[in-house]
Amino acid sequence: MEETVVKAIQDFYPDDFAWCYGCGRLNEDGHHLRTGWQGENTVTIYTPEKKYMGIPGFIYGGMIASIIDCHGTGSAALALHRKNGHEIGDGTELPRFVTASLNVDFLKPTPQDVPLKAIGTIEEIHPKRWKIHTEVYANDTLCARGEVVAVVMPSTFLK
Amino acid sequence: MEETVVKAIQDFYPDDFAWCYGCGRLNEDGHHLRTGWQGENTVTIYTPEKKYMGIPGFIYGGMIASIIDCHGTGSAALALHRKNGHEIGDGTELPRFVTASLNVDFLKPTPQDVPLKAIGTIEEIHPKRWKIHTEVYANDTLCARGEVVAVVMPSTFLK
Repeated sequence: MEETVVKAIQDFYPDDFAWCYGCGRLNEDGHHLRTGWQGENTVTIYTPEKKYMGIPGFIYGGMIASIIDCHGTGSAALALHRKNGHEIGDGTELPRFVTASLNVDFLKPTPQDVPLKAIGTIEEIHPKRWKIHTEVYANDTLCARGEVVAVVMPSTFLK
Repeated sequence: MEETVVKAIQDFYPDDFAWCYGCGRLNEDGHHLRTGWQGENTVTIYTPEKKYMGIPGFIYGGMIASIIDCHGTGSAALALHRKNGHEIGDGTELPRFVTASLNVDFLKPTPQDVPLKAIGTIEEIHPKRWKIHTEVYANDTLCARGEVVAVVMPSTFLK
């Protein structure tokens, strides 16, 4: 049986922030990445469609970067929300993060047609600035390692 | 008039390596990123489709990462090919690179519906290992800065 994220933060983003090609539930064409808690870690599980290949049989780099990026901002939002004493789905407003920086180390070619599992470890480096260390596995093989610095979206961001 | 890359390395990759969602000319669904010389720099120019949004009006992070990534491997191949005394389209076999690491600093929200221009500066750090420093502009605004370490694709890569 395939492992899935039951309760994902992206299911609860306000509609205005649910259009991201990576993780927006309202973007018809996108990946619909979904990120939730697994103990003290965060996880995103996703099997990319065939077209997202680099060379046949392997995932292209931009897809891995996208997973690590959206997994990172989602993880930061999960963490700050929990720190504020809330859980997703309790009706309180969610914080929303943007990515300041993204680093990816490609360790092994990432195979197609298997679920990829991103596992995040969260580090608070400032109340509005969080770092997420992520490992991306294909089955039991560690294929990529990444780091995202996510910052609380400024209220002026959309202006 | 819109600026375009006239002669791109991706136009000359062997068919087996022309399927990347980011830069493969044979991938029907992908971005078809194209990278060529502009003096001593390399450039990739691309206007992402509407669906590749982060929030409405702005490009999603994975798209920027994908541009910097494919622009990086293409730039490295251009540089090594030139170092070897060749130019693209002269009938000689092209080197092909894979990404070892990718770093992106997101400096400003990247607007949709304008051509993005990635400008690369190439640094040889080893005969088989090249670093590409890239700046991504939307019109005259520097929106993201990135760095790719690209390595010559090992002959065992596909095995």
